[in-house]
Amino acid sequence: METCLLLDAGSGGRASQRLVAQCFLRHFANPLLERLDDAALLEDLDGPLAMSTDTYTVTPLFFPGGSIGSLAVHGTVNDVSMLGARPRYLSCGFILEEGLPLDVLERVAADMGTAARAAGVSIVTGDTKVVPRGACDKIFINTTGVGTVFAAPPPSGHNARPGDAVLVSGALGDHGLTVMGSREGLSFLSDVASDSAPLNHMIADIIAAAGQVHVLRDPTRGGLATTLNEIAEQSQVGIELDEASIPVHESVRGGCSFLGLDPLYLANEGKCICILPEDRAETALAAMRRSPYGLEAARVGTVTAGKAQVTLTTRIGGRRLLGMLEGAQLPRIC
Amino acid sequence: METCLLLDAGSGGRASQRLVAQCFLRHFANPLLERLDDAALLEDLDGPLAMSTDTYTVTPLFFPGGSIGSLAVHGTVNDVSMLGARPRYLSCGFILEEGLPLDVLERVAADMGTAARAAGVSIVTGDTKVVPRGACDKIFINTTGVGTVFAAPPPSGHNARPGDAVLVSGALGDHGLTVMGSREGLSFLSDVASDSAPLNHMIADIIAAAGQVHVLRDPTRGGLATTLNEIAEQSQVGIELDEASIPVHESVRGGCSFLGLDPLYLANEGKCICILPEDRAETALAAMRRSPYGLEAARVGTVTAGKAQVTLTTRIGGRRLLGMLEGAQLPRIC
Repeated sequence: METCLLLDAGSGGRASQRLVAQCFLRHFANPLLERLDDAALLEDLDGPLAMSTDTYTVTPLFFPGGSIGSLAVHGTVNDVSMLGARPRYLSCGFILEEGLPLDVLERVAADMGTAARAAGVSIVTGDTKVVPRGACDKIFINTTGVGTVFAAPPPSGHNARPGDAVLVSGALGDHGLTVMGSREGLSFLSDVASDSAPLNHMIADIIAAAGQVHVLRDPTRGGLATTLNEIAEQSQVGIELDEASIPVHESVRGGCSFLGLDPLYLANEGKCICILPEDRAETALAAMRRSPYGLEAARVGTVTAGKAQVTLTTRIGGRRLLGMLEGAQLPRIC
Repeated sequence: METCLLLDAGSGGRASQRLVAQCFLRHFANPLLERLDDAALLEDLDGPLAMSTDTYTVTPLFFPGGSIGSLAVHGTVNDVSMLGARPRYLSCGFILEEGLPLDVLERVAADMGTAARAAGVSIVTGDTKVVPRGACDKIFINTTGVGTVFAAPPPSGHNARPGDAVLVSGALGDHGLTVMGSREGLSFLSDVASDSAPLNHMIADIIAAAGQVHVLRDPTRGGLATTLNEIAEQSQVGIELDEASIPVHESVRGGCSFLGLDPLYLANEGKCICILPEDRAETALAAMRRSPYGLEAARVGTVTAGKAQVTLTTRIGGRRLLGMLEGAQLPRIC
């Protein structure tokens, strides 16, 4: 038995079958996937549906709080959830580098299986490509998710309205800083861990409790600041934030300060932004705090009728524009 | 304006927005994609659904008869169709290498847009990652497709029955040989071109005409021989092929003979295998031949109650086992 991945495993022949049977089918076990037809048959999905895709290229593959495997499940589960939908099924496309140690692939697949079971979703169809050594960096994973939309109307970045409250479900910046610290071997960041988590159950509870939710978004690449700028532009509203109310862990604040990073621009993988009518804010916050992933939820700002931009009132009472991230703060964070 | 892709374009910030607006939204234009929420809202899909994913790593990016862009649409459209489904929506995940010439990306996106319009599908949600130079080879694309299943019961590799006829929709091996020739600069292969094509409309016509179709599969990686072996195993039946009846273009036969390749193991990207009751075979063949992609359709064999294996009766009357491809005949073919 090989210990490293051979090109043959991407051939579509016997070697591919072995990889699928011995690794993926074992960890992702479900009857829909096991049919192994060209497509998965989903008999119990009724419209309207949400569909979202994400490709994961994070390096390193394993980091405190998660791995590319758990991230690949959480990220897409969360994106589907943000449309007010119950994610149900994931597809999974691997690009693997020839020579990859098979135990690494095994750990990644195991993490995916565990994350999928925890989120209550099934990986129902997949594809594996193996490229020659040097043509990719170890493992890239695409997951695409579908789910049934239960919010009516579904939340959208276009629906923020002046007067709405802006909530976040917890502290910001942990994922981005963790991946960076882990990649660069920064020992003073040993007490930060990724927040990677499945938010689907929390989202369902928020919508059930608050009824009307205008916007749900997860602030991944570009962080809170960039995502809020997108929403401000899509909805043509202003967003005013109060810095003192934005939850950031002390360890993250310290690490960012040392490295010259801004936690408001760092990626999160287990947080959501929720924008909804002022009078539903407390109910939504209470729903968030009932979830293990929303214990530190907070109201951080208000939507205004002003220009489509994001303004921050700082701790010392100053006001500054919080622009959109221009380029890459850190590549391969997710 | 840059002419090469910068890492910034994958940051999730302003530079990402520009790439999405200037390249992808332009070529993929449709109102669902233009919402730019975390997921696409699909309001008109009712179950049962088919879902399929494929990642494309083909090299070179452009080859006679297609490109990674058209292939990424056709491949997934076809996989969804093989479940007796009407493909409707695609997601699209790019992994791009820093420094990629933007006009290359533009041509790929244009090919995807053209292929999607021709197939009648919409690319409704997407993701773009940019990795540092050397971390991937130019462009990898994942597409995932969903569509509504209209065949009842849906075809499956498990449904071949003794006595069924085995049809193929046209000549075999063109795609695999073209990509190989194109990659290696083999000038004597200048008259072969990829068969990459969307089969969804032809599949719908076959099912409408023939009624009951037991198996539909597209013989991509591993070719006809490997795919038939998979079906034989899934259905626990024998499959007997008649070599003389299997359509292979003269140019492909010649090229394969020169290179020591077997066209029955080469990838196809615009062909399907159709297995159905004997008495429907002529009707299905006629439906195939009404499509521009099925003009050379032929009956190539029969399903038997024998051992789960594929047997070929050669042109000179000998019989040999056609095993499953063991390893890679050629990597990065799709």
